[in-house]
Amino acid sequence: MTYCVGLRLDQGLVFASDTRTNAGFDNIAVFRKMHVWERRADRVIVLLSAGNLSVSQSVVSKLNEAIDAALQTRAFETTTPSINSCDTMFQVARMVGEAIREVRAVDGRALEEGGSRFSASFILGGQIQNEPPRLFQIYSEGNFIEATKDTPFFQIGEHKYGKPILDRVSRPDMTLGEAAKAVLLSFDSTLRSNLSVGMPIDLLLYTRDTLKLGEQRRIAADDEYFRRLSNGWADGLRDAFDSIESYAPERE
Amino acid sequence: MTYCVGLRLDQGLVFASDTRTNAGFDNIAVFRKMHVWERRADRVIVLLSAGNLSVSQSVVSKLNEAIDAALQTRAFETTTPSINSCDTMFQVARMVGEAIREVRAVDGRALEEGGSRFSASFILGGQIQNEPPRLFQIYSEGNFIEATKDTPFFQIGEHKYGKPILDRVSRPDMTLGEAAKAVLLSFDSTLRSNLSVGMPIDLLLYTRDTLKLGEQRRIAADDEYFRRLSNGWADGLRDAFDSIESYAPERE
Repeated sequence: MTYCVGLRLDQGLVFASDTRTNAGFDNIAVFRKMHVWERRADRVIVLLSAGNLSVSQSVVSKLNEAIDAALQTRAFETTTPSINSCDTMFQVARMVGEAIREVRAVDGRALEEGGSRFSASFILGGQIQNEPPRLFQIYSEGNFIEATKDTPFFQIGEHKYGKPILDRVSRPDMTLGEAAKAVLLSFDSTLRSNLSVGMPIDLLLYTRDTLKLGEQRRIAADDEYFRRLSNGWADGLRDAFDSIESYAPERE
Repeated sequence: MTYCVGLRLDQGLVFASDTRTNAGFDNIAVFRKMHVWERRADRVIVLLSAGNLSVSQSVVSKLNEAIDAALQTRAFETTTPSINSCDTMFQVARMVGEAIREVRAVDGRALEEGGSRFSASFILGGQIQNEPPRLFQIYSEGNFIEATKDTPFFQIGEHKYGKPILDRVSRPDMTLGEAAKAVLLSFDSTLRSNLSVGMPIDLLLYTRDTLKLGEQRRIAADDEYFRRLSNGWADGLRDAFDSIESYAPERE
């Protein structure tokens, strides 16, 4: 299982993903689910993946192969389109969607005949040149939706345990630091309830209009800030619970 | 969709269930999912149901028909077994499981041929004579598990949104009033996140060894206590969130 979150804020973008991959409960491994492309002063693109690991790795490989092919193109040839040549994040989302469909064309039938599901979902975010930062959720069919002011975050994978806290506190005018706090609390709830979502957590903060990667950090189980946050939240919830009067039966 | 919770505490049992039934989003109705049988000074039995409404109603009808058949038995005939004649809650759980299997034998194939799933799950709790109160979760296959000290609660239906709060605060030594508060907070989170779980909520508190129904109440959207609880929890969570330091990027 997987848990990934992306937030689009006035000040930029925040991304987080867990790193646990499992094929059954007895076959667990650590894989990075956060993929990052940067061309300084031009674009920053971040892709979070959930679902079948072979599918999401193939999608990322296809995007990278297109970039490599473009680099090898000689001056007089037509440039191969890649996420580095797109003018907008919308075009990048289309390209990811197209890559998903190509992987499905190759692997989909065999997967389904073997009893597996072709499952893949992505959160895509970033900024290209003068465009504002944008955030998309891309489905396994290759279609996608974009985050708006009303819904500033997307989740993929095991999203239910961590959704209530994001619903309550996330607002577009949060600072990146507040948003990272909210995202890590959302992970804290998910990690407690679903063993197949596991630490470490990859966290990335992108500050609007910088067009370069900002804070990128891998948060392990012994991370000092995460421990304070987790304990502080446990205490805070306990206090909030205690501060509410108990239900008083009408008759006993 | 449905959300139901049952807790087994040192002092007794607490049950709650929502009342929304939907066949698609455009066909919503109110149905009671909490079924109660009482024989004063002898037994109290509570059954919460989730899944296909036709299946759960058939299961309850079968249990009731067995009770009626037993009442009509004459003195010299063998008594028809029913949940009123069981000596233990374990036997009641077996009988509910058997009823599920009988309904599956009649309706299961037609349901699956029509593209529906045979889905039904139950929380069963109660007390019979000198037995301590017991709590079971019964699956659509008719098998079941029993709550222990380690896991004092069961949920069926849309359980994920409301699980984190129960995980954090529920303990067997809670009072029934504290447990009802925890259960209603769990409903508050679920109602906010899943539209197909709907008010009113049926709530039942059973005090150990009374062998009679205690507090039973239907909590509507305008319920004064529920409003205070919901607002108090929103404020408490906000305070807990604010009290934790924001994430501080290492470089900007």
